[in-house]
Amino acid sequence: MVIPKLSPSIFIGVSGKDIISFGSGQPDLPPPKRVFKTISRFRDFRYGLIQGNLNLREALIKRYPRSTANNFVITNGASEAIDLTLRVISKIGGKSNKVLLPRPYYYSYLPLIKFAGMEPVYTDLINGRIDFNDFKKKIKGCKAVIINSPSNPTGRVESIETLKKIEKLTNNLGVYVLSDEVYKDLIYVRENYLIKGPHVITINSFSKTYNMCGLRIGYLWSLDKELVDRVIEMKTHTSMNTNILGQEIAYEATKTPKSFVDKQVKIWRERRNFIYNGLSDMGLDLWKPEGAFYVLPRIKNPRNFVWDMFKKYKVITYLGEWFGANDRVRFSYALDINRIEEGLNRVKKYLKSKGEI
Amino acid sequence: MVIPKLSPSIFIGVSGKDIISFGSGQPDLPPPKRVFKTISRFRDFRYGLIQGNLNLREALIKRYPRSTANNFVITNGASEAIDLTLRVISKIGGKSNKVLLPRPYYYSYLPLIKFAGMEPVYTDLINGRIDFNDFKKKIKGCKAVIINSPSNPTGRVESIETLKKIEKLTNNLGVYVLSDEVYKDLIYVRENYLIKGPHVITINSFSKTYNMCGLRIGYLWSLDKELVDRVIEMKTHTSMNTNILGQEIAYEATKTPKSFVDKQVKIWRERRNFIYNGLSDMGLDLWKPEGAFYVLPRIKNPRNFVWDMFKKYKVITYLGEWFGANDRVRFSYALDINRIEEGLNRVKKYLKSKGEI
Repeated sequence: MVIPKLSPSIFIGVSGKDIISFGSGQPDLPPPKRVFKTISRFRDFRYGLIQGNLNLREALIKRYPRSTANNFVITNGASEAIDLTLRVISKIGGKSNKVLLPRPYYYSYLPLIKFAGMEPVYTDLINGRIDFNDFKKKIKGCKAVIINSPSNPTGRVESIETLKKIEKLTNNLGVYVLSDEVYKDLIYVRENYLIKGPHVITINSFSKTYNMCGLRIGYLWSLDKELVDRVIEMKTHTSMNTNILGQEIAYEATKTPKSFVDKQVKIWRERRNFIYNGLSDMGLDLWKPEGAFYVLPRIKNPRNFVWDMFKKYKVITYLGEWFGANDRVRFSYALDINRIEEGLNRVKKYLKSKGEI
Repeated sequence: MVIPKLSPSIFIGVSGKDIISFGSGQPDLPPPKRVFKTISRFRDFRYGLIQGNLNLREALIKRYPRSTANNFVITNGASEAIDLTLRVISKIGGKSNKVLLPRPYYYSYLPLIKFAGMEPVYTDLINGRIDFNDFKKKIKGCKAVIINSPSNPTGRVESIETLKKIEKLTNNLGVYVLSDEVYKDLIYVRENYLIKGPHVITINSFSKTYNMCGLRIGYLWSLDKELVDRVIEMKTHTSMNTNILGQEIAYEATKTPKSFVDKQVKIWRERRNFIYNGLSDMGLDLWKPEGAFYVLPRIKNPRNFVWDMFKKYKVITYLGEWFGANDRVRFSYALDINRIEEGLNRVKKYLKSKGEI
């Protein structure tokens, strides 16, 4: 069998009655009910501010210390926030164009680094977490680093101790820190720790917390006002304002009580336990997720696995290779427990047929 | 008086009771009524296909010859379509990275060319239209060219004869043509002529035709399937799907009868006549717009004019310099005739006070 060139774009948005998707990382839960009221009221389709709607940026202030509405830019999802930030940083002179990238990494980081004309330097995670000794060595000569805790695809959460050491080191070296915290509200082990510093750019999104991935509302926050202004200037040309209706929906979502998120974390934890136990029971090697909704088990012949599971078993999984983990496969568990169970049964059947378990 | 660094981002989205904005190019007219029904029905916020919603792409097929839904990518406005296309083209090897740019040009083209690491080559318009002899000379050695008819900021429409010569020449040379036709439905002198060819990328948008600039729904169309696939692959990382709710609204807008557009063109023509006559009567040198909703009169000391008009007369205009027209100022006439009249009175008062008319 010939396996075509596999990439996430083959699977994103693909659905069907019989398909079980452990693919794209999006919640199956509904958004907060209150947002639908906003939608029906909406009448004004004119351009908005490039930086983002003021009400939305003001609503974010209280979540970020020492901020004003000017420290935020609302973007087309976290993706655009990272893309714009890297493109802007790549044009700031005086240093190398190297970006330190903990591996395994979210699959878009590497292409985005390359699209920006920058060069990746890898630090390999140990058991899904940063090895600070290696990190310290590799960051020398880098212009920026991408931190992603909780991590997609490992599901791991960095210790606060590590994050504080990173804060201090990057601050001393004057290295930009892109801290992708889109899963900050989905942590099973503690509250999120917000990385801070004069050159920190925090990336966030309404997609995962409020179940609105398709609206593509994300943002960046930074105390580096010059960088924020450069991002706005670039966005003026590359996409202009972020969809204003999506921004109004996101604004409405900011009023959602914390109990909404708490209820969801409870559901995610149950699913986490279910899939972690299921895959462990098959004898697969994997790390226990502490946040987000991904597991990354080691699988023999991952390309065959991903293609066969899709074509023959109608199960979507993501190739570890896309995340810099060549011997693994990523499962998103953002679906109902019954469907997780059905999916795991199909996986078990396949692995048995191959004599791999 | 010290004039700050002026850029469009200072003015975009700025409004107020006393402010007359000849600034950003957005219709003041309402979108088709039918779209509001779609909005209230909307409930599904999940990721969509990166390439864009199938119903929307299918609705576009009949407007473009020899097409299937696979020839389109729905983007965050025309801006993102141009940005992605240039970024993709810049990475296709074998040729120079030069882009031919008719001048004056839409203000985002130059930054987008530079962001993509490409290099502009200019051909100066004569009376707002392409000088084919100069075009023919300058295009040699270029990888791509940007055509924009009707043009923002000149308001001029290229002759069909010129467009056909461009088609033939670029086809022979294998040069990519980015044809930005976002004003194709707002032409006063004839129907739009669609540039065609194996390496043509047509850029379009729902913003100007259906009065929904803030929703940021644009698209590109090309028969060059490899290029389309590369754009999708890049967009998978840079922004993922375009806002799905905006796409549903755009889909609903495609069902709008042609009479909607005809009625609008009638309004635009009246406004065009009003502002063209008004500025001509002041003795200003300008071209008569044949499409879109801009005039680009020659003005003495344009920086002083734009800043004074904004600060002292509360009139927003755009600096010709941003469009590669150093001795001119752009007026968008996308506002009510009474407001155009009030704005022109303020302009007249200012120019008289300076002894310039």
